[in-house]
Amino acid sequence: MTGISAFIKNCWYVAAWSDEIGASAFLARSIIGMPLMFWREDGGRLVAFEDRCCHRGAPLSLGRREPAGIRCMYHGMLFEGSGKCIEIPSQEFIPEAARVRTFPVVERHKWVWVWMGDPAHADQSLIPDTHYLDDPGWRGTPGYMHYRANYLLIADNLLDFSHLAYVHEKTLGGSSKYAQIRPKITRTARGIRVERWLLDDEPAPFLKTIKTWPGNVDRWNIYDVVMPGVLLMDSGSAPVNSGAPQGNRQDCAEFFGCQAITPETATTSHYFFQQSHNFALHDPQVTENLRLAVLAGFQEDKDMIEAQQRVLDMDPQFRMLGLRMDTALGNFRLLVEKTIADEQRAPSAASAA
Amino acid sequence: MTGISAFIKNCWYVAAWSDEIGASAFLARSIIGMPLMFWREDGGRLVAFEDRCCHRGAPLSLGRREPAGIRCMYHGMLFEGSGKCIEIPSQEFIPEAARVRTFPVVERHKWVWVWMGDPAHADQSLIPDTHYLDDPGWRGTPGYMHYRANYLLIADNLLDFSHLAYVHEKTLGGSSKYAQIRPKITRTARGIRVERWLLDDEPAPFLKTIKTWPGNVDRWNIYDVVMPGVLLMDSGSAPVNSGAPQGNRQDCAEFFGCQAITPETATTSHYFFQQSHNFALHDPQVTENLRLAVLAGFQEDKDMIEAQQRVLDMDPQFRMLGLRMDTALGNFRLLVEKTIADEQRAPSAASAA
Amino acid sequence: MTGISAFIKNCWYVAAWSDEIGASAFLARSIIGMPLMFWREDGGRLVAFEDRCCHRGAPLSLGRREPAGIRCMYHGMLFEGSGKCIEIPSQEFIPEAARVRTFPVVERHKWVWVWMGDPAHADQSLIPDTHYLDDPGWRGTPGYMHYRANYLLIADNLLDFSHLAYVHEKTLGGSSKYAQIRPKITRTARGIRVERWLLDDEPAPFLKTIKTWPGNVDRWNIYDVVMPGVLLMDSGSAPVNSGAPQGNRQDCAEFFGCQAITPETATTSHYFFQQSHNFALHDPQVTENLRLAVLAGFQEDKDMIEAQQRVLDMDPQFRMLGLRMDTALGNFRLLVEKTIADEQRAPSAASAA
Repeated sequence: MTGISAFIKNCWYVAAWSDEIGASAFLARSIIGMPLMFWREDGGRLVAFEDRCCHRGAPLSLGRREPAGIRCMYHGMLFEGSGKCIEIPSQEFIPEAARVRTFPVVERHKWVWVWMGDPAHADQSLIPDTHYLDDPGWRGTPGYMHYRANYLLIADNLLDFSHLAYVHEKTLGGSSKYAQIRPKITRTARGIRVERWLLDDEPAPFLKTIKTWPGNVDRWNIYDVVMPGVLLMDSGSAPVNSGAPQGNRQDCAEFFGCQAITPETATTSHYFFQQSHNFALHDPQVTENLRLAVLAGFQEDKDMIEAQQRVLDMDPQFRMLGLRMDTALGNFRLLVEKTIADEQRAPSAASAA
Repeated sequence: MTGISAFIKNCWYVAAWSDEIGASAFLARSIIGMPLMFWREDGGRLVAFEDRCCHRGAPLSLGRREPAGIRCMYHGMLFEGSGKCIEIPSQEFIPEAARVRTFPVVERHKWVWVWMGDPAHADQSLIPDTHYLDDPGWRGTPGYMHYRANYLLIADNLLDFSHLAYVHEKTLGGSSKYAQIRPKITRTARGIRVERWLLDDEPAPFLKTIKTWPGNVDRWNIYDVVMPGVLLMDSGSAPVNSGAPQGNRQDCAEFFGCQAITPETATTSHYFFQQSHNFALHDPQVTENLRLAVLAGFQEDKDMIEAQQRVLDMDPQFRMLGLRMDTALGNFRLLVEKTIADEQRAPSAASAA
Repeated sequence: MTGISAFIKNCWYVAAWSDEIGASAFLARSIIGMPLMFWREDGGRLVAFEDRCCHRGAPLSLGRREPAGIRCMYHGMLFEGSGKCIEIPSQEFIPEAARVRTFPVVERHKWVWVWMGDPAHADQSLIPDTHYLDDPGWRGTPGYMHYRANYLLIADNLLDFSHLAYVHEKTLGGSSKYAQIRPKITRTARGIRVERWLLDDEPAPFLKTIKTWPGNVDRWNIYDVVMPGVLLMDSGSAPVNSGAPQGNRQDCAEFFGCQAITPETATTSHYFFQQSHNFALHDPQVTENLRLAVLAGFQEDKDMIEAQQRVLDMDPQFRMLGLRMDTALGNFRLLVEKTIADEQRAPSAASAA
């Protein structure tokens, strides 16, 4: 239960922030254990190559961008964007097998998504809506962290906000009352939805730095965690009795968090995140304060989760104890396990469909 | 023969110096591969917890001391000193399995002892007498080293003082004559006793810095090594012909060394030591000189033993060659192996009895 | 194909530069996974010991040079140059097994060669001729690099000079025309010979810093790679139409490169090299410029090969794609594999003969 060494393949993983891949600069990044290299064709179209020349395994990210594509700078094979080799020094004949594997890749709202499974099933409609990342009605700051932990330990964390009162006691957290709330958990098509309302509570410390509140607030977190590890979170605080639970979102401080956990290897992970807000859009200090608050909180998570990983590493036989607060993460883990098992039974089927 | 991956469980291990565990500070330390966390209840009673929350494996040493006990700062479970969970956020029912494992722990003469096996057999009368550590008639300075070596390689070293003339040639060692002495070796209830007398020899270099000697000395080392790895050493030098071998300890420089090797993992160890002396009690410089001499010597051992471990790591098939000087260490290793085998056959029996 | 964990044993490996082993200083170096310790007897004769005392595995390179040999500074065993133990503290009887393994070792032209297999087959006539290393008619500077890569990846590199135009584009390399040449490859008694001529081409950048050329040059590389991994390379450039291909070596810049790859472990290697030249012998600046050019180029190789090793480590199942340019290296790898298989079938036979 503590770790799953296999990964879901037929799904979209967040691989990068768009601006990590320049017009002429490559990005080398491993995803689910596969070394990848991202680059742009003329005109800007993104390409995701296996970062390993088919010839002798040299990394293509040490290669050279030429008008026609990428040249491996070990022995000079030249590959076009399709992955096909179009030149081999010292021989005319180019065998069919002379190609580098490519992966479907899509750029959406500043995130680069890559499909690690069967390209035939790479249905772009499966990509979650993250327009909050670049919608002019919202503001936020892109973030990235590298984790020395299995991605499911991070997903666990996102799926149980009862940790807010403890890990983030002095930052994002707030009252222990919040930790006591039993969230409403529902199963969605490809994940889990968690809804949690706390009515009539003191504003969290960082909220007070952003806005003046007449008194207590109603707080909510409504979020979806979608396989493989994308969190879409609608959260906010509204003045108590202003009708937020009934749908009135006036005078509230509203956030939309987009977070993505992408396994690098079985024991390391990428973590992409942006917490957007739809108020005080013209006050950069609010955005900056929010960025700092988020970073402080996420660093607390990282410290705890990496420590947890180290402890778990000492005894792979350790069995976790299921509690009521684990309902959402337990359901998510079952879903992931089932999806991996289904893929292994029928690798060519679109398990994500 | 070079390493034993299993450990004796039904025995007392030295885990810490008392003052490493403050009234409110925790000590996290792994022993025989188990992460432990030491803390004090109100009133000072020591508690040894498994440093791993039963819920999801987070380290409790990242937790918070509360009046009632330790709260895991990941999801808020609260554990009292007995290990029982007494609060789970967001649920009333506390399952029987919601407890953290505790270990019998005893504080004696500045050392903290922990029992890693069946608590029913944790007989405190098995703890060796180390009153020299805090007896007002003796002085010495606590020491600790972390070793990158299996604990048995360190025990080997303690059980064969013929290395003094080589490893410690310029510090503790002295003459090669000393290395030639064949010690008297006897089996004790839970270990090995080694007695070695060198009559009419030059005082060791560091002895000359402590006291003026009329001429040659009689030197002795009489020590017990008790499982799992505790050394209790009576040693000293007396003016030649003063009757030291017959029991007269007047005009001698007498030491009592307490040393404990505690496995951290199969390849790393903790080493606790104090060399006490019963002369010049009011001259702190003597104690300080002794501390420096011991540290210099122990660093020489560490350099050699860690190098030995690295060489042995290169070929696990390497077979050591038994020599006469290995009698004591060979007997001790056989005793340890037999004790482990006995425990594995009958885990609940008190092998230490 | 990417790595062979076994090694050839019945062959001469380059272990060191002669001056790495002083009259009284030891050299500790591991070769094909075996820790070795090199030292000199009185009179300068070299000895290669297993760097592991037969008693308890302590490294003898932490020992002491005494008139009679090497004393282990853990417990004092004394070994003479033959490996025989001649003194054991505290016992008279010296068992037959009390000896340290020795290896045939030969010093030739500044290189120290060691035979890792059956000493009965250590035929010195198998040592390749590297007199260019210390012949007064040639000059060059000794070099050494430590590689985090399997030695065969480095041998691959030496056996396929098509990489010159890419890896060394701005240093040793020169034109892509050179990479297009199909070399003549022949099998030799214990390796592979590669001949490559490029007629009427621009001089390589570094050549221009050494000498003024009337125009284009004829370039050649004629080299032998001999098992386990010794490269002997005759190369140079001559004015075009001066008859170099027919054997006239006047007015040319001629080099002789001696390079040796010696496995340290399955994943790390030693690399010894000297590029000698037979012109401008009295201008140290030329030698220095050549040294810098070689170092710059070899660092480029190292960066590429270590990156290749890291990529290969991520997927041991990766299959390399054979191209025409791999003929020489493919043949060499087959030869190495066959030699290892032969040795494993008949360990005592002289596979090198």
